[in-house]
Amino acid sequence: MPAIFKAHLQKFITLTNAEFQAILPYFETITVKKKENLLTEGQICRTNFFVLQGCLRKFFINEKGVEQTTEFAPETWWMTDNMAYEFQRPTEFFIQAIEKSEVLTIHHTAQQELLKQFPVMERYFRFIYQRAYAAAQMRIKYLYGMSKEAFYHNFNDKQPAFVQRIPQYLLASFLGITPEYLSEIRSKKRS
Amino acid sequence: MPAIFKAHLQKFITLTNAEFQAILPYFETITVKKKENLLTEGQICRTNFFVLQGCLRKFFINEKGVEQTTEFAPETWWMTDNMAYEFQRPTEFFIQAIEKSEVLTIHHTAQQELLKQFPVMERYFRFIYQRAYAAAQMRIKYLYGMSKEAFYHNFNDKQPAFVQRIPQYLLASFLGITPEYLSEIRSKKRS
Repeated sequence: MPAIFKAHLQKFITLTNAEFQAILPYFETITVKKKENLLTEGQICRTNFFVLQGCLRKFFINEKGVEQTTEFAPETWWMTDNMAYEFQRPTEFFIQAIEKSEVLTIHHTAQQELLKQFPVMERYFRFIYQRAYAAAQMRIKYLYGMSKEAFYHNFNDKQPAFVQRIPQYLLASFLGITPEYLSEIRSKKRS
Repeated sequence: MPAIFKAHLQKFITLTNAEFQAILPYFETITVKKKENLLTEGQICRTNFFVLQGCLRKFFINEKGVEQTTEFAPETWWMTDNMAYEFQRPTEFFIQAIEKSEVLTIHHTAQQELLKQFPVMERYFRFIYQRAYAAAQMRIKYLYGMSKEAFYHNFNDKQPAFVQRIPQYLLASFLGITPEYLSEIRSKKRS
């Protein structure tokens, strides 16, 4: 499992094997079952999650009492509630495994210490946050300017394998539509 | 003017005066007039902007041909189209000064070089992107789960001075409503 993380790190930074071995103890590997929560609304968000295998989703309970999915994290993606994590505050989100998953976790204090001891990790996380921020800015553009139908086609064009992989009701939740309307959009495309 | 940037950097990193003087030549200070564009749809996005004085906004032209404002950058905020900037691609956005503004600019190549020569700037930009990403995640949550009215009150509660500062039609555009509906929400609050 560390091999996945090492290969991922090496996309962004140069790291000797000794450095990688020294970095590993800052992390813990856990296995979570399908539908198991890694974070629950109201908890102080103390952990950052990196998916080695499987897939996580982030959601909140909206005013109608319905789960609203805002994000997915498949392999080699990080996920946490970044605002609650940085300021060690209670979260408004849930993070849940949508498949049986293997996850690398790092505690907030350990991440601070890692950055202090290994400045090269500043570069790594600068890349991670920079790209995540850029992707979030595009999401905001889509949420403002795109119809739900166009949002589906855009997501399907960019991530066809992923759209096949996730349950239809979660994809509908992410798109902000009902599963029935999603079926309708899909059958229109096929016709 | 450099004093504003120095004070801002020192919130995140420790920098000697000599280091700060060595960093400054990577940047250029420009003055832009009200309504002047710093970035135009279709251009390769080569520049990152840091507001010393004034305020910028980012917008795109939506399917109805209307300007949709997605972001504001007042003093000490960075702004660019991060996706287009990182991959040096044409942008889908405009960046425009909403007041006469003084802006520190850095070219993409210069920023890469700065990060290489001054690794402490990796830490600085890691913080900047981390916080911007966290804020964008909260924006996404609001866009999914909050009524336009609640979004206005939330924004007004958190940034009352800023809400007073920006023109009403731009605030309406940011909220995704008409100026008329914004007036209605505001008068309801007053009653």
